[in-house]
Amino acid sequence: MAEKKRTAETAESMAKRQREISVSEFFLKNRHLLGFDSPRKAIMTAVKEAVDNSLDACEEAGILPEISVELQQQAENRFVVIITDNGPGIVRAQIPKVFAKLLYGSKFHRLRMSRGQQGIGISAAGMYGQLTTGTATIILSRTRSAGNAHRLSVQIDTRANKPAVLGDEEVDWRPTFPPEAPGQEPVTHAHGTQVTIEMTAQYVRGRLSVDEYLKQCAVANPHLRLHFRVTTLKKDKSGALAPETGDWQTYLRAVRTLPPVTKAIQPHPHGVELGVLLQMLKDTAARTLKGALEQEFSRVSARAAQEICERAGLNPKANPTRVAHHEIEALFKAIQETKLMRPPTDCLAPIGEEQILAGLKKEFPADFYAAVTRAPEVYRGNPFQVEVGVAYAKPGTNAELGAEEPVRVMRFANRAPLLYMGGACAMTEALENVNWKAYGLLQPKGSLPLGPVVFFLHIASVWVPFTSESKEAVAHYPEILREMTFALQEAGRQLAVYLSRRRRQAEADRKRGYIEKYIPHLALGLQEILTLSDKQKTKVEDDLTRMLERTHLET
Amino acid sequence: MAEKKRTAETAESMAKRQREISVSEFFLKNRHLLGFDSPRKAIMTAVKEAVDNSLDACEEAGILPEISVELQQQAENRFVVIITDNGPGIVRAQIPKVFAKLLYGSKFHRLRMSRGQQGIGISAAGMYGQLTTGTATIILSRTRSAGNAHRLSVQIDTRANKPAVLGDEEVDWRPTFPPEAPGQEPVTHAHGTQVTIEMTAQYVRGRLSVDEYLKQCAVANPHLRLHFRVTTLKKDKSGALAPETGDWQTYLRAVRTLPPVTKAIQPHPHGVELGVLLQMLKDTAARTLKGALEQEFSRVSARAAQEICERAGLNPKANPTRVAHHEIEALFKAIQETKLMRPPTDCLAPIGEEQILAGLKKEFPADFYAAVTRAPEVYRGNPFQVEVGVAYAKPGTNAELGAEEPVRVMRFANRAPLLYMGGACAMTEALENVNWKAYGLLQPKGSLPLGPVVFFLHIASVWVPFTSESKEAVAHYPEILREMTFALQEAGRQLAVYLSRRRRQAEADRKRGYIEKYIPHLALGLQEILTLSDKQKTKVEDDLTRMLERTHLET
Repeated sequence: MAEKKRTAETAESMAKRQREISVSEFFLKNRHLLGFDSPRKAIMTAVKEAVDNSLDACEEAGILPEISVELQQQAENRFVVIITDNGPGIVRAQIPKVFAKLLYGSKFHRLRMSRGQQGIGISAAGMYGQLTTGTATIILSRTRSAGNAHRLSVQIDTRANKPAVLGDEEVDWRPTFPPEAPGQEPVTHAHGTQVTIEMTAQYVRGRLSVDEYLKQCAVANPHLRLHFRVTTLKKDKSGALAPETGDWQTYLRAVRTLPPVTKAIQPHPHGVELGVLLQMLKDTAARTLKGALEQEFSRVSARAAQEICERAGLNPKANPTRVAHHEIEALFKAIQETKLMRPPTDCLAPIGEEQILAGLKKEFPADFYAAVTRAPEVYRGNPFQVEVGVAYAKPGTNAELGAEEPVRVMRFANRAPLLYMGGACAMTEALENVNWKAYGLLQPKGSLPLGPVVFFLHIASVWVPFTSESKEAVAHYPEILREMTFALQEAGRQLAVYLSRRRRQAEADRKRGYIEKYIPHLALGLQEILTLSDKQKTKVEDDLTRMLERTHLET
Repeated sequence: MAEKKRTAETAESMAKRQREISVSEFFLKNRHLLGFDSPRKAIMTAVKEAVDNSLDACEEAGILPEISVELQQQAENRFVVIITDNGPGIVRAQIPKVFAKLLYGSKFHRLRMSRGQQGIGISAAGMYGQLTTGTATIILSRTRSAGNAHRLSVQIDTRANKPAVLGDEEVDWRPTFPPEAPGQEPVTHAHGTQVTIEMTAQYVRGRLSVDEYLKQCAVANPHLRLHFRVTTLKKDKSGALAPETGDWQTYLRAVRTLPPVTKAIQPHPHGVELGVLLQMLKDTAARTLKGALEQEFSRVSARAAQEICERAGLNPKANPTRVAHHEIEALFKAIQETKLMRPPTDCLAPIGEEQILAGLKKEFPADFYAAVTRAPEVYRGNPFQVEVGVAYAKPGTNAELGAEEPVRVMRFANRAPLLYMGGACAMTEALENVNWKAYGLLQPKGSLPLGPVVFFLHIASVWVPFTSESKEAVAHYPEILREMTFALQEAGRQLAVYLSRRRRQAEADRKRGYIEKYIPHLALGLQEILTLSDKQKTKVEDDLTRMLERTHLET
């Protein structure tokens, strides 16, 4: 070749450079995948991960959650983030791995709705703090049975994806929250956890901020008492920077009942992949194929299992761990062809139409509300359920909602608000693809509809398929798109009825006003033509008005 | 609480369920993160991962790449995908890990431009095949020095993220490609690799297909000879399905020179995070702080290192592994404040303006072309470089480009085409945010400009920050957005000059045509008024025409 001399790489020299990549190294280099691309987003993501964990822990332990979030500015681009909960606490031995090891947790290997599912979030927040400030994550935790609280400071050894414990002591600590009412004592609980992370961050209010996250969190979790406080650095008279602490802002509980307890389920056979079926049969403790189908899956009765085996031409009494590869293909096909009950729904805890309406009414004054909770469906064997809420405010009555601006969209997954990446989300796509003109809203081609409307979109699933580890948008599985579309159309029909009634009413009002204006002139004319007395003229006026009112009512 | 009895979870019972999640399990459940959401996308992603690896290997070994891609339909939703290259081959011992272990590779731990960087792609493709069909990935590979080729079939043990070798034999194999010209012999090479994966897949032509991927690949890699063939199942006369094999489609080489060899570099100190700096000083072999700064980073001269130490108030002779935490903060600050040379550019191999123009001209007949290659910049310490190409076809002259449709956008990262997730890509955002009206194109607010235009957008970097592991969109780092915007504006200015000349020309043409039409009538009128001879009349006509032409030229 006529070019400058190349380094003579060979298969052998290249082989020497091959090595393993630790998952922490991977995400350290790709921190944007975890939601830590910018200082502004980083602080929201850290709060979100901690609050999600706190809510999950409280609900699992049957505790009405109380959570506080504090942001303390340390320098221009530096904050300490402190999240405290009244959850069950974390046993000492688990603390380092929970907070300083990626891909570690209790929620990944079960099928049950929860906010966390990956075992990445809170460790990622700590890793980002460590990366940008070199500091450690500090955890205080007290369990119900422990005498004292533990205070650990941990970092991630990113080369090995293992926790490094830098400090470990017993301390006398209990989680304390702002008082229920002014003048009262602060509220102290017997158990709970506090996480403190220092990080490069920016705090800006707005649609993509911690404020908005917490507000939406309160809407979707009416059983939560939530406190929020920010300390920022302000210049004092001498020009020096001094911390200024704002007041606690508290979201009160709207209800005192926890969401229903969700149960972990077996996978539903429809949509399970061949490779997963293979692995499940290999791992089963059942001694017959029929037994394995019944035990390992949900909604496979003895009769259904028998039917599947027959359809596949397999012996129901065969040893499931020894089914040959081509037989599994037949089994796989037979499963898809066999009619089965829908998946059980007690693995999901949808918010419910009533609570969605309550949440919307609390936060968005409007003239019309509707909510739709669909029946559960399945994608890739995972049950999921879709909910939609909609609120319409008469133009000009709600300052947050412009009459000719794109509608406002709040997205939630397993009750956790999703703020970023709306454009990449299946829920947004479904919303844009519904023909809103048919339901009385303006809509530029392929865009969000326009109008003074808020949409509340929720997916509840035992495994929400997010488009990235930062859990900001839902992936475009066709089953999810379809369900979301149906839910939106159902809400759309209710909205259309309201809007068309409102439009007819407005039209009638306009006509009525027009005629009303002329009734006195008409009466005066009739008085002259028919030479009526003033009394007769007044009667004619009254009669005409009454006629108009009747007509109006019959429109 | 007034609700039905809860399972009494405690900190202790919850701790028992905590466990490690293998990275394979994680991605198996999240296969959409790797680009395997749908059967249609899966086949494109698998081809992409294999072709990327082949190109990287060829270029590193200084081999002019020749690659073939074969798709063989097995059933309605099932294909075998076969990719063959003439690369250096892979030594036997590395094959299982390279093809059946996630997060394993040679490209992650170095700073140098390559298509692959994560050590995930090809193993993920194999894992998807395994998940959907239960089959193994088959690899044939022959290195220059080996006597025979190796044939391995491997699967991933997803619980442990480790390869399981199902078959391992030596065979007599060499990669063979379709002949250079009709009637000639097929081309056989002495070394190369072939990967075969069977998977649930759909093959559909179009903008998001294997076809389009390969076409764009040929545009951005003019040194590549690429063959493509599809075998589909068609119904024969008896109604039975029979395979029908299409012809090889070959993209010929436009050049016979490889892109310049890129060199692995040290990180540039600007933009390196505090945590990374900390780790680097801990790991350095240098004995002084000054020495560490010089050795571990690029563009830190002895003088710059001295300046940084002084600025930070640190002893240049201090032991770098023992610098205290607060001292590293000072060092970090001093680094940012010290002026340093831009990063070296030999770690990057941009395509270059000339080759971009050649590529565009080959594939998109048009009337105007421009290309811009910007100087390298840095984000988070990683050098990157941005390139833009633009082609404008007069309305109606290129059937692929609608005059009033959004412009066509081709995105590339390290010479690899990006087809999906355009809406989530920083390159698209930069394109939408440029004010194209200023450059003579129509543009709906916040959208792509309209017009018969193709944009070619390329980012070359030692580490391209993708928004997901499937590498389909570039993350929104402000430095990248800024550079892309500058490049687009530069190309835009060239386009504007052309369009405004074209518009003036069109305007003049219009006037000219108008007058031209009336010259004979004018001459006839003059003949009557002045009683000119026919000869004189003809002369007047000629003079007027000449005048008009002169005027036109002076416009």
